[in-house]
Amino acid sequence: MVNIIVAGPRGKMGSEALRLIERTENYELVGCIDRKHDGMNINDLENLPNLDARIYAEPQQAFQELKADVLIDLTSPEVGYLHTRLALENGVRPVVGTSGFTSEQLDEIQQLTEQKELGAVIAPNFAVGAVLMMQFAKWAAKYFPDVEIIEKHHDQKLDAPSGTAVKTAQLIEEVRSSKIQGHPEEKETLPGARGANEDGMRIHSVRLPGLIAHQEVIFGGTGQGLTIKHDSYHRQSFMSGVKLAVDEVQNINMFVYGLENLLE
Amino acid sequence: MVNIIVAGPRGKMGSEALRLIERTENYELVGCIDRKHDGMNINDLENLPNLDARIYAEPQQAFQELKADVLIDLTSPEVGYLHTRLALENGVRPVVGTSGFTSEQLDEIQQLTEQKELGAVIAPNFAVGAVLMMQFAKWAAKYFPDVEIIEKHHDQKLDAPSGTAVKTAQLIEEVRSSKIQGHPEEKETLPGARGANEDGMRIHSVRLPGLIAHQEVIFGGTGQGLTIKHDSYHRQSFMSGVKLAVDEVQNINMFVYGLENLLE
Amino acid sequence: MVNIIVAGPRGKMGSEALRLIERTENYELVGCIDRKHDGMNINDLENLPNLDARIYAEPQQAFQELKADVLIDLTSPEVGYLHTRLALENGVRPVVGTSGFTSEQLDEIQQLTEQKELGAVIAPNFAVGAVLMMQFAKWAAKYFPDVEIIEKHHDQKLDAPSGTAVKTAQLIEEVRSSKIQGHPEEKETLPGARGANEDGMRIHSVRLPGLIAHQEVIFGGTGQGLTIKHDSYHRQSFMSGVKLAVDEVQNINMFVYGLENLLE
Amino acid sequence: MVNIIVAGPRGKMGSEALRLIERTENYELVGCIDRKHDGMNINDLENLPNLDARIYAEPQQAFQELKADVLIDLTSPEVGYLHTRLALENGVRPVVGTSGFTSEQLDEIQQLTEQKELGAVIAPNFAVGAVLMMQFAKWAAKYFPDVEIIEKHHDQKLDAPSGTAVKTAQLIEEVRSSKIQGHPEEKETLPGARGANEDGMRIHSVRLPGLIAHQEVIFGGTGQGLTIKHDSYHRQSFMSGVKLAVDEVQNINMFVYGLENLLE
Repeated sequence: MVNIIVAGPRGKMGSEALRLIERTENYELVGCIDRKHDGMNINDLENLPNLDARIYAEPQQAFQELKADVLIDLTSPEVGYLHTRLALENGVRPVVGTSGFTSEQLDEIQQLTEQKELGAVIAPNFAVGAVLMMQFAKWAAKYFPDVEIIEKHHDQKLDAPSGTAVKTAQLIEEVRSSKIQGHPEEKETLPGARGANEDGMRIHSVRLPGLIAHQEVIFGGTGQGLTIKHDSYHRQSFMSGVKLAVDEVQNINMFVYGLENLLE
Repeated sequence: MVNIIVAGPRGKMGSEALRLIERTENYELVGCIDRKHDGMNINDLENLPNLDARIYAEPQQAFQELKADVLIDLTSPEVGYLHTRLALENGVRPVVGTSGFTSEQLDEIQQLTEQKELGAVIAPNFAVGAVLMMQFAKWAAKYFPDVEIIEKHHDQKLDAPSGTAVKTAQLIEEVRSSKIQGHPEEKETLPGARGANEDGMRIHSVRLPGLIAHQEVIFGGTGQGLTIKHDSYHRQSFMSGVKLAVDEVQNINMFVYGLENLLE
Repeated sequence: MVNIIVAGPRGKMGSEALRLIERTENYELVGCIDRKHDGMNINDLENLPNLDARIYAEPQQAFQELKADVLIDLTSPEVGYLHTRLALENGVRPVVGTSGFTSEQLDEIQQLTEQKELGAVIAPNFAVGAVLMMQFAKWAAKYFPDVEIIEKHHDQKLDAPSGTAVKTAQLIEEVRSSKIQGHPEEKETLPGARGANEDGMRIHSVRLPGLIAHQEVIFGGTGQGLTIKHDSYHRQSFMSGVKLAVDEVQNINMFVYGLENLLE
Repeated sequence: MVNIIVAGPRGKMGSEALRLIERTENYELVGCIDRKHDGMNINDLENLPNLDARIYAEPQQAFQELKADVLIDLTSPEVGYLHTRLALENGVRPVVGTSGFTSEQLDEIQQLTEQKELGAVIAPNFAVGAVLMMQFAKWAAKYFPDVEIIEKHHDQKLDAPSGTAVKTAQLIEEVRSSKIQGHPEEKETLPGARGANEDGMRIHSVRLPGLIAHQEVIFGGTGQGLTIKHDSYHRQSFMSGVKLAVDEVQNINMFVYGLENLLE
């Protein structure tokens, strides 16, 4: 049985984490950390009859009173960092979803895991499919240096391109020699047609109502094409990665940054 | 039996037209127009043993000596216009693939067909699938005003976006009220990510080795998406439209511009 | 202002219809029909503060007491038929989502609309995108008789192929001469590989977790392919069709079966 | 400079190999093996003005007279095996495209490479994109056990499913626990709709004119999907793998079976 504390249980992700724990046989929720609702039971807030755990406003108190194996933290970078430190100091292995920690903070967590001989997993992206897409893309780019990325999102998204698209391009850059793609004399008769330019790779952002979150990485070579596509239909998709991290963090005594390092 | 003259038999398209005639039971090649090789037989140039027809350098001579029903012209706009006039004046119905005629020239052809009571078909695009894609897109846009176009071609193509993509957007504009798509405050962190802007619609041009000629028109609405995609793998694809035009031009006594007007 | 009665407001579709009315400026909910909760206000059941309408267990009473223009019925075929008759008899134009009426029932509704000089719209499918996909497919099949359908759904779906896939194939059959596709001597080394056979067309059903409801109709011709794809991400997608029907039913004095007949 | 012998230069693949050598700066064609045309120059057969090499009907003679580094063999399993042995016995490193060798033959080649301390590469599939697709699929299946394969080919293909689809499924089986997919009570209302069953995975074969050779491997998980797609547009696609093998075979002193083992 894995005894788990969830920090941020009222958030969209935290709420999914509660559901993950409820439907996983060997997972047990022992407590929640939430600055509001101190002393209440999680069942007073969420309609999850099989869960039964106290809410703590004070994280220190939670770690001291509860006998926990793992912390799932799906809060903000600021409180998440505090929770991660407290967890390690109290012998609890943290699984944290954030891309917001500074490199100094990551260094400190690294040292703390070594000192305490505990595992810790921090990941910017817990969607296993998206992480595999990026790893496959990085691998394929060694053999197919011509690549374009098309990402598609709902039309309420503010920024283009998406963070995942940029991250994918950066991973590809690690293995691909800088290269100008397309015909050397190609010409845009309508500006922007050829998309954004990231080290010669082209990124295209589609925004339409109805869409959720989708990305294709398209490689072209003589006589052939290779495409890797991820479709995210629901934020539940992140829970497969959270589960993987919870299961693995118990077997390791080191700090792992990025879900890809748990996907052999 | 349909007796056919082919103008431009040595071009890539003309050569496919010869093959179309060879494999169509009720088509007969009666002659070719080609400024070179006057007096030779088409079999001296192309290895098509079932064809047997003289080449004429002088179009006037061809139309006078040959008893033809239809002219298939796949040359250039300049000589194509001359051939079209000569054909109509000599009672031959022209099927012409070009987007290069001026509106004055089109008006003259219109008048000539009326005067001679003959059919004529001139089309910028003979790929039935591409023409249907554009018609479907125009129809769908009435109900889905949010639309983006992704066109993909080999990386030797010089211009972006493709002519077909621009034409598709223009057809959609005929039925769609002008509209800014995406979030009103959306922001490109890499310029060009959101593609080219045509009346609020976004067009994205992918260029990769291996690709041939592909286009997707993607519509988005609340909770759903509708996509119309055309893949052109080989220029043979144009011959289905040429055949349709040859078959229809004999049944009409009017001038038809654009294959879509033969696709009820 | 369009005064609307909703029958079946607690169902998934009925609930979306309430939301449609709430966010549409010139729509007004005047009452609901629901065998339970007689006399309560819809606000006691659904958290939609801008709506304010009484629930009637007796449909006859609702139609007599309320001054309504349109009935939106998203119940079952049995009670739906009763509601449709009552609506027409009381001068209310029905918009009904069902594929379950018998041809006798449809005939009676037809006669009643003529007699009362009222519009009525009954549709098996209110997803505009899906209906357009089927219409486009029927059109394309005239020129591309080789066609396969791939439909993809979540893995909780019991029947394969989907009703929409079968309906699409049947619509195509209306315009396509019966044809055996593929190589005449093709051989399945694993049975079922070539999918279901509907008049020579092949239908393939994919069932995977994560998927929602998707269909592609793929046409192939010499050197080209044409694909029409519909993705349904959320049942909200049906509301665009309901809205179209509500808006149109007021302008017509006839019975329309099938949303396609409102999509010119 | 890499001195190369090509066996089977008149075949479709052999002809592409000649073109590969012609356009690669540090490759030199030193001779060809072809049971016909002994003593002629390759230029008498193929219009490749930059190549200049004698054709040998006797492979033994070719290996003895020519100073070659690498043999590219794109013939049949029978003569290919003979050529491979002769090459190794004469100090030439073979690159062979075949899936037809017996395990006894592969064992012998293994021993011969050890004895001679030479590299050898034998691969059933030289399309780098297809090999990567299979490797990615095998990797993804560890995390997404629900998977279906759709392969699409032209309608002249006789067998369904394709060899690549079956091979992909078999690779996935190596890492995926046997699993029945779909709803336990799912029902085919048209037989074959759910495709072929390979250890619970479903394989669907589309056959349409115009298509070339395409495959999608679709993984589904809670709230997400991951798709890996390969499109083969032209047999030139195989030459990227041949080139990779020619370049690598010179750096190794062992026998490598399968291109995937050269793709780190």
